[in-house]
Amino acid sequence: MSHSYLIDIDRLRVDIQELGAIGYDAQTKGINRIGFSKADYEGRLWLMDRFRQEGLSPYMDGACNVICRYGDEDAPAVMIGSHLDSVPDGGLFDGALGVLSGLEVLRIIKNSGIALKHPIEIVAFSEEEGRFGGMFGVQSLCGLIDPAWISSVQDADGIFLKDEMEALGLDPMVALNAYRSPESIEAYLELHIEQGPVLEEMKRTIGIVEGITGVFDWSVRLTGEANHSGTTPMDQRRDAFLGLCNFGHAFPQLIADHGSQISRLTIGKVELKPGFAHVVPGEVQFSFSGRDLSENVMRDLANASRELLSCIAREKNLMFEYEEKSWLSPKHCDAGIVTMLANEAENLGHEPVLMPSGAGHDAQFMTELTKAGMIFVPSVGGISHSPKEWTNWNDIEKGANVLLAGAIALAAK
Amino acid sequence: MSHSYLIDIDRLRVDIQELGAIGYDAQTKGINRIGFSKADYEGRLWLMDRFRQEGLSPYMDGACNVICRYGDEDAPAVMIGSHLDSVPDGGLFDGALGVLSGLEVLRIIKNSGIALKHPIEIVAFSEEEGRFGGMFGVQSLCGLIDPAWISSVQDADGIFLKDEMEALGLDPMVALNAYRSPESIEAYLELHIEQGPVLEEMKRTIGIVEGITGVFDWSVRLTGEANHSGTTPMDQRRDAFLGLCNFGHAFPQLIADHGSQISRLTIGKVELKPGFAHVVPGEVQFSFSGRDLSENVMRDLANASRELLSCIAREKNLMFEYEEKSWLSPKHCDAGIVTMLANEAENLGHEPVLMPSGAGHDAQFMTELTKAGMIFVPSVGGISHSPKEWTNWNDIEKGANVLLAGAIALAAK
Repeated sequence: MSHSYLIDIDRLRVDIQELGAIGYDAQTKGINRIGFSKADYEGRLWLMDRFRQEGLSPYMDGACNVICRYGDEDAPAVMIGSHLDSVPDGGLFDGALGVLSGLEVLRIIKNSGIALKHPIEIVAFSEEEGRFGGMFGVQSLCGLIDPAWISSVQDADGIFLKDEMEALGLDPMVALNAYRSPESIEAYLELHIEQGPVLEEMKRTIGIVEGITGVFDWSVRLTGEANHSGTTPMDQRRDAFLGLCNFGHAFPQLIADHGSQISRLTIGKVELKPGFAHVVPGEVQFSFSGRDLSENVMRDLANASRELLSCIAREKNLMFEYEEKSWLSPKHCDAGIVTMLANEAENLGHEPVLMPSGAGHDAQFMTELTKAGMIFVPSVGGISHSPKEWTNWNDIEKGANVLLAGAIALAAK
Repeated sequence: MSHSYLIDIDRLRVDIQELGAIGYDAQTKGINRIGFSKADYEGRLWLMDRFRQEGLSPYMDGACNVICRYGDEDAPAVMIGSHLDSVPDGGLFDGALGVLSGLEVLRIIKNSGIALKHPIEIVAFSEEEGRFGGMFGVQSLCGLIDPAWISSVQDADGIFLKDEMEALGLDPMVALNAYRSPESIEAYLELHIEQGPVLEEMKRTIGIVEGITGVFDWSVRLTGEANHSGTTPMDQRRDAFLGLCNFGHAFPQLIADHGSQISRLTIGKVELKPGFAHVVPGEVQFSFSGRDLSENVMRDLANASRELLSCIAREKNLMFEYEEKSWLSPKHCDAGIVTMLANEAENLGHEPVLMPSGAGHDAQFMTELTKAGMIFVPSVGGISHSPKEWTNWNDIEKGANVLLAGAIALAAK
C-alpha cells in the first residue's frame, strides 16, 4: 500500500512543547507529571481539549486513561498510544511522543478523508512510570487489576493510590471498568524514544521493536569471614568480595556460552561487610539482573550464573545464597506488524533496525491483548529519565511518519 | 647458653586476669582500656604496684610509659615490653601479654640471682592502639614526637590528647622528655599474640617475627558512565564495577608475578554510584592496600597494580584515578636476635616458625632505635581485637619461656 500522507512536524512540535510546559520545573529544567499528581491530571485535561479542537469526543476511562476514537465503523479499533505521566524531573518525549504523534496521525487521517475499515483510537495511558508500581492504566485496560490491589497500593511516601484518585474526583473502583475485550481491538502501535544508545551508535533513525526483553532480578549474598588484612595470609582468607570479582569477570564468557547478542547482565548495587579498608570483607550482598528477548536464553543465563556462583563459593570457601526477586517474561511484538512497520519504514527511505526494547513500555501488556508493534527513534546520547533527554525534531518527524504509515496500513479500507 | 629457668604460669595467669578486670565490661565481655582513659591509667598504676611488690622502683615517663629497671650495671638495658591500652571491647592478651610476661621474666631473673651484664627494663608503652593515631608511647621514647603534634592531635570524637593528659594530672609537653638515646638500650624483646591464623593452622606454638610488613593504602576511583541496564547493550557500556571485578580477579596472578608468599592485597571498602539494581554503575570508589616484608616487592606490586588498572581502564573506556593515602615501609627485626630466639625456642623443644607480622606493634619503632625481636604465640581462630580473643595458657607459658630464655641470652654475664 502506497500513499503520500505525511505528518505536520510543526504542529506536532507545538503540541509536545505545550504539553511539556505542564509540570515543567524551571529550576531543574525537568518535567514533573508524576502519575496521579495534579500536573499529570492537568496534562490529561489539556489533551482532551486538543481532541475537542479537532471536533472529536475524548473520554477518560475509570483508570484515568484518556481515549479518543475516530471512525464510526462497528469494528475493532487500531489503537495508538503511550503514556502522559513522567518520572520526577523527566524529559520532553518519554511517553508524550507516542500520545501526541497519535493525535497528529489522527488529524492527518481525519483530514485526508481516507476510508477506514477499522476506527482509530488514541490512548494516553496512566501511571506508566511506576509511582504505584507502574503500567496502571494499561493493566486496567487489559483487565489485570483487582479491587484489593487498588485499595491497598501505596507510593514510596506511603500515599495510597485510592486517596490520590479521590483527590482528583475519581472513583478508584471504576478503574475496573476500564477493561477492554480483545475483540474490541485490532492492533496497537506505539512510537517511543529508544532511551538507549543503539540507533545513535548505528547512525539509523528508525528502530522496529521485536519485543520487550524479559528480566530476572536476584539478590545474592556471598559469606566468608572478616579478618585482619595484615595478619591473614591470602590462602587462609575467605574473601567474599574476591568471589564477586570472579563472578563479574566471567560476564563476557557467561554471555558467550549461554547468552545472545542482546543479553545483558548487570550488577548495580554492592554492599560489603564490614566495609573497612583493612578488614578482609567477610560478606558481600549484591543485585544481579539478566535480560534477554528469549525466555530460554534467560533460563540458561540464570542456570549458568547459579552454577558459576556455586563453583566460586566452593573454590573460595564461601557460602552462596540468592533470592529470585522477580522474573518477568519477555513479550513479543506481532511478527506481521514488525514486518509491516519495517516495510513502511523502507518505503519512506529508511533502513530500519529490528531491535529489542530493554526498557518496559505500555506495549508489553498490549502484546497479550492484541497484535502490538513499536517504533523507536534515537535518543541523543542514549539519555532518558532526565531533563537532558533529547531527540532531534527531524527524527521525531520520521518516526511519526512511520507511525502514520503503519496506522493507515492497518486501518484503511 | 643453656639453663633451666622457667616462668611460673600460675603467677602470670593471675597477673593477666587481675589486669583484665580493669576496664572489663560485663555486658560486652570486652576490655576497655582505651589510651589515656581512666581505666588505662588505672591499669598503669596497678602495674607500678606490682613492680613495687617485687621491691623495685618503677616510674612513669612523660609519655605515660611505665618503666621498671632491674640491675645496677651502668650499661645499655635489655628492654622487654608491649602496651597496656586496648581497643574498644578488646581481648585479654593484646599488649598485656608482652608487659606481664616481661614482669614475670624480671621476677625469675631477679630471684635466680643470675649475674647480668645488661640491666633489664620492662616497659608498658602508652596508646599503641590508635586513639590518637597509635604508638604514642613508643614514638615518644624514640624521639619521634614534636610539641606541635602533642598540642594539636585529637581523637575521633574531637577530644585533644593534651586535655586527656592534663585530666590525668600529666603535663603533655613532658612527653618530649621520654626520649631514650640508642646508646642506653642494648636490645628490645616483645612477646605478643599472633592475631592471625598462621600458627594455629600450622599447629605450631612459637613464631619468631622477621619483621613487620610494610603497607600501602590507595583510594581508587574508576569512572565510566551510568546507564539504564535495560537499554544499554553490553558492548556500549562503560561499567566501572566490571572494571573493578577484573582487577580483583587478577590478584592471584599479580602476586604470582610480582609478589611473594607473604604478599597481601585487600579491597575492603567499595562504593558504587549510583548504586541502583537497574543502573549500570558509572563510578566505583574503593580502597586498595598491599603488604609485604620487602619494600621492593611492595613497589613492584604497586607498580603492577597501577599498570593493570590503567590497562583495564583503557580496555573498558573508564577513567582511572588513584591517591596513595599512605606508604609505611617494612621494619626488620635484628637478624642476630631472630636466630638467637629461634635457637632458644628449639632448645625448649619447639619448632619455631619464622614469619612476618602483618599487624603493627611497638617493636616496629624499636627496630629503628635498637636490635629488636618479637615472639608470637597462637591466636585461637586467628581472632583479636574482640572479646573472643583467646590464647591457650599452655601456649602463653611456652611463649613466655622463650622470652625468658631470650632475655637471659641477651642480658646475662
